[in-house]
Amino acid sequence: MQARHLFPEDQIVLREVGLRDGLQLTKQYPTTEQKLEWLNLEYRAGVRHFELGSFLPAARFPQFADLRELIQATSSLEAAFSTALTLNERGVADALETQVDEMIFVVSATESHSIANTRRSQTEAIEMLARIDAQRRAGRADPPVLTAGIAMSFGCSLEGEVNPRDVIKIAERSLKAGADVLAVADTVGFGGPKQVAWMVRELRRAFGDDQSIAMHFHDTRGLAIANCAAALDNGIRVLDGCLGGLGGCPFAPGATGNTVFEDMVFLCKSMGLQTNIDIEDLLAARKIVAASMPDEPLHGAMARAGLPRMLEGV
Amino acid sequence: MQARHLFPEDQIVLREVGLRDGLQLTKQYPTTEQKLEWLNLEYRAGVRHFELGSFLPAARFPQFADLRELIQATSSLEAAFSTALTLNERGVADALETQVDEMIFVVSATESHSIANTRRSQTEAIEMLARIDAQRRAGRADPPVLTAGIAMSFGCSLEGEVNPRDVIKIAERSLKAGADVLAVADTVGFGGPKQVAWMVRELRRAFGDDQSIAMHFHDTRGLAIANCAAALDNGIRVLDGCLGGLGGCPFAPGATGNTVFEDMVFLCKSMGLQTNIDIEDLLAARKIVAASMPDEPLHGAMARAGLPRMLEGV
Repeated sequence: MQARHLFPEDQIVLREVGLRDGLQLTKQYPTTEQKLEWLNLEYRAGVRHFELGSFLPAARFPQFADLRELIQATSSLEAAFSTALTLNERGVADALETQVDEMIFVVSATESHSIANTRRSQTEAIEMLARIDAQRRAGRADPPVLTAGIAMSFGCSLEGEVNPRDVIKIAERSLKAGADVLAVADTVGFGGPKQVAWMVRELRRAFGDDQSIAMHFHDTRGLAIANCAAALDNGIRVLDGCLGGLGGCPFAPGATGNTVFEDMVFLCKSMGLQTNIDIEDLLAARKIVAASMPDEPLHGAMARAGLPRMLEGV
Repeated sequence: MQARHLFPEDQIVLREVGLRDGLQLTKQYPTTEQKLEWLNLEYRAGVRHFELGSFLPAARFPQFADLRELIQATSSLEAAFSTALTLNERGVADALETQVDEMIFVVSATESHSIANTRRSQTEAIEMLARIDAQRRAGRADPPVLTAGIAMSFGCSLEGEVNPRDVIKIAERSLKAGADVLAVADTVGFGGPKQVAWMVRELRRAFGDDQSIAMHFHDTRGLAIANCAAALDNGIRVLDGCLGGLGGCPFAPGATGNTVFEDMVFLCKSMGLQTNIDIEDLLAARKIVAASMPDEPLHGAMARAGLPRMLEGV
């Protein structure tokens, strides 16, 4: 699969990452059957891109034990795309046995977080990314897209402020090591729209307008939707979010999680950007999330307010 | 008082409208003592602009019965400014007996809402605004600033979409009738950041960069902070909000209320804009709001997440 097929340039892609990032920290998680219903309801609402889990040992991460089934289910849906985290060679070997369309390998914008999170320096992480690239190409003629997720791009829970130049540098090293796509992440929700606008302009200046760049925001401090608006304004076409804003922040217990998916769709509508996603169908799909994880708080303004008059029935 | 004293051009003004808009729809409201504590705590946090109530008959609007006391208290605080709604000549007469710094008279961007809300056509509302302007000038040599609040500027609960040209038109008529300042309101939370950016540019093109223009957003559909960012990006320097996002929407029961004040302060900080307001002090002030209205849901991401590492203690 090529990045331009996964993320066509002329299309807004809103990717549902709830089945991965949304379940990263939860104590409860849905059954496989509930996950498939969640997937199917969102597919019917018009969502086409799904991050489904992480290739990790099922014993330690039971919430992702059914990842293969979810990938298979997604591959049977027309024009639907699946993504999974692959954090090491073993994960890539597992991924290559599936039809997953995109593998995300995570590097960190800061050395401290790289070591704390993965016990690898940034240089070691880039070396592993290069090995993963070689591994996928050796394994398959048309391997999955390889994406470098850049954690802590807008501030770091360990180092505090992050120099945006460091993000550009690690992005450049990731692309050189073989990544097709960048996923620039505000892992802990420190970023604001001015930083986002600057970062997007610099990334596009450094790597060209045709480079696929996804942005991944957390609403930890209430700026996720403003950050999405800034990203869209500056030409970003791939954004991550979770239905109901699932997914917290390990460094801010009780904080809001990922960008609320359905509010992000409304933002796009309000900006005149076509998503082909139906908000009312999404709101209906929240029920399965609520039912399968009753103790998880769901966030989101659209769920409280409903569609404004001029969009009712649209 | 002149508008340029109330809203200096070189300064970001974040106005707390909780004591007015935040109490507009609530069944509970704080005692006068609790309101004064709320006011003082926010003043200590650095807030200097307060909308305190509405000059309306106390029998029908008991939540605003102590408006005069709040104005008096505010006038005793150094460099603090008070605002109140004055919706008719009687209200203005009452206002002129106080030291209120700003009177807001509300006009509607749509004829339907004007009639439904006030039983006045837009033309009748503009005529009343002109009479109010004459009344304030006859009453005092240095009368309060007169602001035209333009309701439903980004969409109307009755008419649906609102033509931005109609907002510019009613704004122009309001200024001609004697208003010093415009307060452009997304009363029902229909607007998005693209509309806001367009509106601000058109308003400034029509009325000049030195015209004081305040923007008033509701977070009904999750776009308030994105709209604030768009307004600030395009030169707006006066924004309204409520601690804890108080204030609902009469047309969307259960919806989020006004822009969350403390999240708006964080937005400004993230954009490098000086507000002189301390977020941790604001978060502490939420306690008095929560204690005085225990049944009102308080919103806001900062309250859940706390300050990011790089701003701790700043």
